[in-house]
Amino acid sequence: MAIIGIDVGGTKILGALFNKNGEIVDREKVSSKGEEGFDVLMNQLYKVIDELKRRNNLKIKGIGMGIPGIVDKNGLIVLTPNLPIENFDLAKHLKNKYNVPVKIGNDVNLGTLGEYKQLKKKHKNVIGIFPGTGLGGGFIINGDLYIGQGFAAEIGHIPVQKNGYLCGCGNYGCLECYASKKGIIHFINDQIALGKETALKDDVLSGVIRSSKLKKAYDNKDGVVLEAMNSFTDYLAMGLGTMMNVFNPDVIVLGGGVLDAFGDELIHTIIEKSKNHSHKAIFNQTKIKKSKLGDNAVIVGAYYLVK
Amino acid sequence: MAIIGIDVGGTKILGALFNKNGEIVDREKVSSKGEEGFDVLMNQLYKVIDELKRRNNLKIKGIGMGIPGIVDKNGLIVLTPNLPIENFDLAKHLKNKYNVPVKIGNDVNLGTLGEYKQLKKKHKNVIGIFPGTGLGGGFIINGDLYIGQGFAAEIGHIPVQKNGYLCGCGNYGCLECYASKKGIIHFINDQIALGKETALKDDVLSGVIRSSKLKKAYDNKDGVVLEAMNSFTDYLAMGLGTMMNVFNPDVIVLGGGVLDAFGDELIHTIIEKSKNHSHKAIFNQTKIKKSKLGDNAVIVGAYYLVK
Repeated sequence: MAIIGIDVGGTKILGALFNKNGEIVDREKVSSKGEEGFDVLMNQLYKVIDELKRRNNLKIKGIGMGIPGIVDKNGLIVLTPNLPIENFDLAKHLKNKYNVPVKIGNDVNLGTLGEYKQLKKKHKNVIGIFPGTGLGGGFIINGDLYIGQGFAAEIGHIPVQKNGYLCGCGNYGCLECYASKKGIIHFINDQIALGKETALKDDVLSGVIRSSKLKKAYDNKDGVVLEAMNSFTDYLAMGLGTMMNVFNPDVIVLGGGVLDAFGDELIHTIIEKSKNHSHKAIFNQTKIKKSKLGDNAVIVGAYYLVK
Repeated sequence: MAIIGIDVGGTKILGALFNKNGEIVDREKVSSKGEEGFDVLMNQLYKVIDELKRRNNLKIKGIGMGIPGIVDKNGLIVLTPNLPIENFDLAKHLKNKYNVPVKIGNDVNLGTLGEYKQLKKKHKNVIGIFPGTGLGGGFIINGDLYIGQGFAAEIGHIPVQKNGYLCGCGNYGCLECYASKKGIIHFINDQIALGKETALKDDVLSGVIRSSKLKKAYDNKDGVVLEAMNSFTDYLAMGLGTMMNVFNPDVIVLGGGVLDAFGDELIHTIIEKSKNHSHKAIFNQTKIKKSKLGDNAVIVGAYYLVK
């Protein structure tokens, strides 16, 4: 009995087939083609599932899926800012098409679930923090994924500046406006407006920076980029402080594209800075770890959602 | 079988005897006398318990107690900033003395538990926010008090200003520096330093403002106090926004001395402002209520901790 785990992203759909031991035995990756509309996106999704089924002679027990958006507790996709899906019961739709149980969750929530299952010790309360283009997070409380009424763990939208940048969510001063690639772009844009030079000028003006390019400019000691990463770690440390003071968790897992590209050095800086935003007793109790699964976190979490 | 619930505060110890139906049948209140040292404080505490026992001919099933400080998950009192108790197993000490089970928790956590038990509908996730001298909170998650490794719900120490006021905890820019009486005093102090006049000058310089006096100055349209309360509600709304975006809770209960004194008007302002710091879908799902128990919240929570 196999399980298919899928990570539906803004640009790519990644699927994997897990055997009964939870090992990945096959993978399929296609473009999302979300910009071409709902029907094209759905066809890309079918392609991933159909290919994994076609190439493997295993009976499918269920399909789990992570979506970059707001998914309610029944799996209804309420909103996906970067994909053409809104108020659509994708779980039911796929269940009818493939005749197996389908479970859908927020991608970063599932990423946290995936990372949680990799921990050797059976911790109870684990927080995942994943800065990428935006800033997402997930909570494991008493050993289970916590989603509140469906939308919990919107840590990117914790207010950290009273009169801060306007966020995509419509509010001002959200953590995501500082501790994410969007935040880094905001910061560098401001520096460019002040007349400063940076190797990333064209990337920033286009609105997209690849993490690898950011890391290269950082290693080349691009002054604006060094300052931008200093601000990024300042604010991400505030987010860690909030998570520690609120949850007094056993473990915090740090992952996501930016941190994966930068490696341990940046994480050590963030941990050091987070001391200044958390109760000492709580900080001392918290294990802060780097994610182990990288790009596989969501598909592994999707697997456990079904299992 | 009766239960004794006790609220050990910085200035007063309030005890109540609950009968088997959970009704308060007797109360006792004494000064804490914490400034006279540990032994005197203990004698005051014994006095409350002994009086309640002496005056009532009910068999005591257990004693529950709320403490304004850090209590670990086994009931060990780690630290109480305003009382002379540190690293002391008060629960064990009282259990030996009175030969009944004794359970101890953080006072604001127990206040949240008390308020939770008053809600008519059986909600799962409820957040308590109680601005007083400082800012405390408590979380009910999946129907149970959530304390993490013992110290969770330190919402007063969520960072909300990157380079803010120095907090008593040693960090800078904690929510409590803005959304509490300490914060109101900070604000008014700054205004006095700028040469502004206020009826509360002497109180603020002494470091203590009574909530009733604050309300009177507000009703008299004292300009500095109006501004101070505007800042207070701005920041408290940020705290509410954080709690909503993090937990996507069913209910938030607002209580504590300042809000009790000001009544509904201030709470409506806070709710309105919190819209600007929370996801719209989440805000719409959250019921925000005023506390029902007032001064009784902690003793009622202490009762439920034992029951």
